[in-house]
Formats: sequence, structure tokens, C-alpha cells
Amino acid sequence: MDRIPPNKTMANGVLPALPDRHEIGGDMMARLDALAAHSETGDGLTRRFVSAEHRAASELILGWMRDAGMAAHMDAVGNCVGRYEGAEPGLAALMMGSHQDSVRNGGRYDGMLGIVTPIACVSALHERRERLPFALEVIAFGDEEGVRFASSLLGSRAIAGSFEYDALDRVDDDGITMRDAMRDFGLDPDAIGALARNPEDILAFVEVHIEQGPVLEAEGLPVGVVTGISGGDRLEVTITGLAGHAGTVPMGSRRDALAAAAECILAVEDRASAGDATVGTVGIIAAQPGAVNVIPGNVTFSVDLRSPDDAVRRAMVDDLKGEFAMICERRGVIVAIETPHEGRAAVCAPWLIEQIGAAVTAEGYSPRLLPSGAGHDGMALEPITDIGMLFVRCKGGISHNPAESITAEDAGIAARTLLRFIRAFRKTPS
Amino acid sequence: MDRIPPNKTMANGVLPALPDRHEIGGDMMARLDALAAHSETGDGLTRRFVSAEHRAASELILGWMRDAGMAAHMDAVGNCVGRYEGAEPGLAALMMGSHQDSVRNGGRYDGMLGIVTPIACVSALHERRERLPFALEVIAFGDEEGVRFASSLLGSRAIAGSFEYDALDRVDDDGITMRDAMRDFGLDPDAIGALARNPEDILAFVEVHIEQGPVLEAEGLPVGVVTGISGGDRLEVTITGLAGHAGTVPMGSRRDALAAAAECILAVEDRASAGDATVGTVGIIAAQPGAVNVIPGNVTFSVDLRSPDDAVRRAMVDDLKGEFAMICERRGVIVAIETPHEGRAAVCAPWLIEQIGAAVTAEGYSPRLLPSGAGHDGMALEPITDIGMLFVRCKGGISHNPAESITAEDAGIAARTLLRFIRAFRKTPS
Repeated sequence: MDRIPPNKTMANGVLPALPDRHEIGGDMMARLDALAAHSETGDGLTRRFVSAEHRAASELILGWMRDAGMAAHMDAVGNCVGRYEGAEPGLAALMMGSHQDSVRNGGRYDGMLGIVTPIACVSALHERRERLPFALEVIAFGDEEGVRFASSLLGSRAIAGSFEYDALDRVDDDGITMRDAMRDFGLDPDAIGALARNPEDILAFVEVHIEQGPVLEAEGLPVGVVTGISGGDRLEVTITGLAGHAGTVPMGSRRDALAAAAECILAVEDRASAGDATVGTVGIIAAQPGAVNVIPGNVTFSVDLRSPDDAVRRAMVDDLKGEFAMICERRGVIVAIETPHEGRAAVCAPWLIEQIGAAVTAEGYSPRLLPSGAGHDGMALEPITDIGMLFVRCKGGISHNPAESITAEDAGIAARTLLRFIRAFRKTPS
Repeated sequence: MDRIPPNKTMANGVLPALPDRHEIGGDMMARLDALAAHSETGDGLTRRFVSAEHRAASELILGWMRDAGMAAHMDAVGNCVGRYEGAEPGLAALMMGSHQDSVRNGGRYDGMLGIVTPIACVSALHERRERLPFALEVIAFGDEEGVRFASSLLGSRAIAGSFEYDALDRVDDDGITMRDAMRDFGLDPDAIGALARNPEDILAFVEVHIEQGPVLEAEGLPVGVVTGISGGDRLEVTITGLAGHAGTVPMGSRRDALAAAAECILAVEDRASAGDATVGTVGIIAAQPGAVNVIPGNVTFSVDLRSPDDAVRRAMVDDLKGEFAMICERRGVIVAIETPHEGRAAVCAPWLIEQIGAAVTAEGYSPRLLPSGAGHDGMALEPITDIGMLFVRCKGGISHNPAESITAEDAGIAARTLLRFIRAFRKTPS
């Protein structure tokens, strides 16, 4: 490892020029396309944990890391870890990265953009022979989506020391346990515990990710600064009324479970719309017995409620549970609510929001602050280090879909913004 | 056929005593149980058109008809037709009856009560050697529910001359055409046309039927007088919005097809509740893609709208179509509405309502007028003769279900009421 000053040309007070946004963006898009070639399916991108595609993608990623001047290896849980030393070896690191796995028939930018972007930045530093007063680490997490074993954030949880060992006994669709699949892949489940990082060795974790929503596109902005990853509750609601003949039961005598559910669905919409950055969604509904001429006697529906602020989310959940109870009591139907999932928010550190925002401003854009309604690896890492995120505009807000799309120019802007942030980075906890 | 005066004892001005309600009701319940033994399924009653069970039930019915002094035969479409001549042979007839077939896993009173009750009345007249100034006919229609060939009212349509001959080519679950099934049963599809009655030969058609709704039970009445059989429209509504991530699309940017559908469902409930005797039901709903964390992009739902008054129904349908369009335009989603079924109402003749009501009053009950939201054979017969219906209380309003239940006393009250009506019957078109 060569010993050079933090910034090679800081001696004369001038930083090397940033890469051209079209040029670096074009290179990144070529890498994203190369990664996308390693898919289990032809239509959209499908790349599950410890699959042949995981290996092929990892080989590309490790090669790019090494080309960018990083020491790179695959760790015991299947993450590709690259390290670019700072002015001297062994300094605490600014950690960056995202996940290399995908949902079934997903897109080529979700996760992968957050791997390719910091590698491009490190590459630019390496070409310019710049060293920083801290190390850089780029991690391509082996699993975030959790498709294969229905257990998500495997890679980042291992780094954070919160890997759930019970998950090793989970089986995939072919009945193979995660433990066996990992061993077949050449990984060592027994060594996962040793991956847990000492918080003192990490200055922060910063992730670049496509927005997966329509806000930046609607506002004509290529990038945005994430304020936090929303916490979310999932409710399973069952309403039991009384089935009856659609022709013979007068309106006033009905206990229609679907009409009650309809009122609850609108209550979710109203309550989520009234909150600040809260969202509420009923995505699944089923009415029984389900005949055109029978009043529904039983309806089940899901509710997904999110907020970047846990207290706000809990108040919303409590309000809606109360409202469901009132609606159903008034209608003479019975409501039962289960909460199979409750996840707290992961707030981005104000000092990182500020420094990322400053980089966006320097790149020439208004630093739009927005929450992340979707989950990300930062949720796993937030307990051990401060986290920050840079969102990149995606076409139509579409994600988890083969139609997922970004422009090369936006990719280039993201890389230049991240590079500006890296160069100016100073840990200044607020 | 013996020639006797219209009412044997009218000579001295006193009618024979009516049968005891418990005694006649008990006999009727025994017959209903005997019919129920002929079922394709063990749980509920299943008796489809031209099945072995249809034959067995018909043999019972034809025997009871003959025991009651009627000439009885099975006609070319599978109806059991019994005729009790009046004071002289060949007089125009008061026609009564209902259907012997059932839905799948249905109850033992739907249809069958309307066969057993007029047979019990004729039997009482026969025992008392009473003849009337008109003939009585009792018909047990072979098919009303239309389960086997998905074509309903086969028996009553044949009598009304509106049999749909295309239906003969329909196949059942085993691929057997209705034509072949009828021939195998010993029926003659080519003779159906000859079953059409001359309207001059029929004075009226009166049907006794369980209410299949909760009104009479709620009001503590054993019987009620039907004002008409509601017409009904069925709509198939498709709402197309935009699917999206439940976490990342702000509430204000959504085009949630399910939230729009929820508003439409409540509009159906509101509009139907505002009408006089109108009902509206959404019985089927499906949301796509149907994931807890995805905003529904597409929702389909059924709407069943009924009214005893066609103009009222049409206005309700038009209002709701307009309201759906408004709701969906405001929400930026697209609505498409199809109307696969539209059926006009069959109004009961005021003079029959009056005479049936007078019989109810004579039996000691308030003549509650109510519409029939469910369809009945009278719908087929109304084009050729005036129709009337007597409803009988059923437990919990439950029908099309093995739990369908009536009391022997209510059956007896229904028979005595029908007998009072028959004895006092005089065709007096209003």
C-alpha cells in the first residue's frame, strides 16, 4: 500500500477535476448492464442469495474493486468487501454500499447502483492518486431482499453483528437450508459472528439507491437526500359480518363485512394523508363467500403503515385501530386485528444529511430532503454507526420491476455528488 | 270426475272448518323431509334438473297430487302438473306452485314449500268434497335454480311459452347436453312448445315461498304478502389505477385502484339505502397485484342492484354509474363498467295482493307487504297471467344453505292462509 498525502494535490490547494458526468455515468451504466446479465430469469432481473448468479456478479464486483485500487474479498456471509486505505493503513472507514441481490423479476438498479457508484468514486480517487484522512470501504451485500430464504438484510446484519442464526435453518423452495446452501457456495456460516464490526472502525455508512418513488422525477431533480428510513407496521384485519342474499336482506338489516372494510380502507387513506410523510396502503383484500348475489360475511385485508418517525407511526396505528373498532361497532360487525410485523424507523444522521446536501448543492441542485418509505441496508447498520443515503431519480418511480430505469446522466450526477461528499467528508456528529 | 256444487256446504252458508294449523303443518313438514331425502349430497339438499333425485321427488309429488284428488302427470319439460277440476271440468284455473330443484347444498324449503302447501290445500278441499267455480292447478317446476345447465326458470318458461331453445345445447359438468339429459330422463324436448298455456285458461299464478330474508322474523310475522319480484342489474366494474411501492409513493401522488373502489362500494350502499325497497350489494372484489406492500393498480368488483320498480332501479343504476365516473375522475383512475345482466321487475297484481292480504288478515295477522328481492317462477309467468306471492318466515332469513329452517306452525299458517285465499278467490283485475 503506497503512502501518499490525504489529497495528492491539496499541496497546491487545487483538487483534481471531477470526472465528466456523462463519461462516468456511461461507464456505470455499462457495469450495471454487465451485472444484469447474471440473472436467473430472462425477463426481469432475478439474483438470489448464494446462487450461481450471485457468484458471477460477485466476481465482476471484486474485479472492479481491485481495478479501483481496493483490497477486495468475499466474506463468510457472501458480501463483497473492498477497502481503499486512507493516508495510512488501518484508519477508520467511511463505509458505502448496497445489495447485489434482487427481487424476482426485478430491475437492474435497485441495490446495484449503490455498489457501482462508490466503486466509480474510489476508482476516480485511485486514478487521481488521492488518499483521504480515512479509509473507504465498499460492500456489496450478498442478500438484502431476502427472496430465497424469506429472511432479509442477511449481509448488513452480519456486518452489524445482528445476524439471526435461526435463519440458517430456513429452507428455500427446493428444501435446501440456508446453512447447506452457504456451505455449497463455499461460505462458512460458523464464521459469520466474526464479521461483526467494531463501531469505532466505522465513521458512517452511506448508501446510494434509486428512489423507487416518484418524488424526484415530479420535481425535476436527479438526486435527493434521505432523512430516514421509515418504520412500518403491517396489520392483518379480519371483519366478520353476516352473509346474506343480495336481494332479500334490506339495507338497514345488513351486516356487510365488505362495506365495513371499504370504510376502513378510506380511513387508512385519510389518516395517512393527514400525516407528515406518512403512507398507508391496503394492498390485499379478500371477500367471502365471494358471489355476485351474496352479501360478504367475511373480509380480510392487509394494512401497511409507514412513517420516518416512530412516534408518528405508532400514533397513526393506534388511531386507525380505534377508528376500525368504531366503524365496525357502528355497523354491527366484528373486527380482529393482528400485527405480524412492526419495524422501527432508522433516522439518518443530521450531520450526514447536511454533508450530503452540501455535495448536492455543489453539484448544482437543490438538496431535496425526503424520507425513504422502502427498507434498506442502513436499517441494519444504524445501530452501530450513523447512516446517510443519497436517492437517485428513477423513471416513473417504478422499481421491483423489469421496467426500472435511470439515465446515465443521473448516474453520473450521483457519482460526482458522492465523490464531492467523500472528498469533503469529516465526521462531525451533531 | 264427480259433479258437485262449488262449495259443498255453501248450500247452508257454512264452510267446512279449516284444518288445524299444527296438524296440517306437521303433515307438510313430513312431506318436506321426505322430499329432502332425495338429494345428490348428504350435507345440504342438492337436486338438479333431470337427475335421479328429480325423478324420485317427482314420484312422491305426483302421488301426493293424486291422493289430493288431482289428475297428475309429468310434462315434456319435467314439471309435475296436478289439476283439481272446479264445479265442472275444463274451467280456467288458478295456478299455484313452485320448483322442486335446489341449489347445491341448499335447504329443503326453498321451492318445495310452494309445492307442498297448495297440495295440502287441495287435499283439504278434496277431503271436504269442496269444488270451486274454477279449477286449481299445482305445478312442481322441474327447474328454477338453473344449477345443472346454467339456465334458470326452465319449467315456468315452458309453461309461459318463453322457453329458450338454445339452452338445449348447453352442457352440464359432465359434458352432457340438456337435450340428451332430458331424453335420457324420458322427456321430449320437441314437445316443449306445446306446453305453452293459453292465457285465457289461467286466472292467476300464486306462489308460496320462504322469504329468504329477515323481515318477517324481525317483525314477528309468520307470513307476508309480496308486492313484486325485484328487477336486478349486475354490473362488472374495473378500476385501473397505478401500482406502486407502498412505502415510496406519497399519498398525494397515488392512483390507488382499491381506495377508489372502496369509495364506490360505499356509494352503492348509500344510494341503495336511500331508495325505497332498493338493495345494492358488492359481493365480489379482487385487487391486483395483491401484495401487502404494493398499491393496488387494478381492482374489479361486482355490483348487484335491485328494486321492485324498474324506473327506480334504472335511476339507481344511472346515478351510480355517474357517481363511479366522478369518483374515478377525481382520483385519476379509469373506470370501466359492464352490465352482463339486466332483469326487469315482475309486479304482483294489486287485486291478488288485496285478496292474499285479506286471507292473512282472516288468519289473524297483519298483512305485511314486502318486495321479493330474490327471483322466482312468477317472473316467467307474469307475461301471461297476473301473479301473487305469499312469503313465509324463515329462521334468520337464511336460505340457499343447509341451515334453512321454518316451523311447522308457520307452514300450517301458510296453508290455512292459502286455503282462505283459494276459497275466497275471485278474479277481479284492478
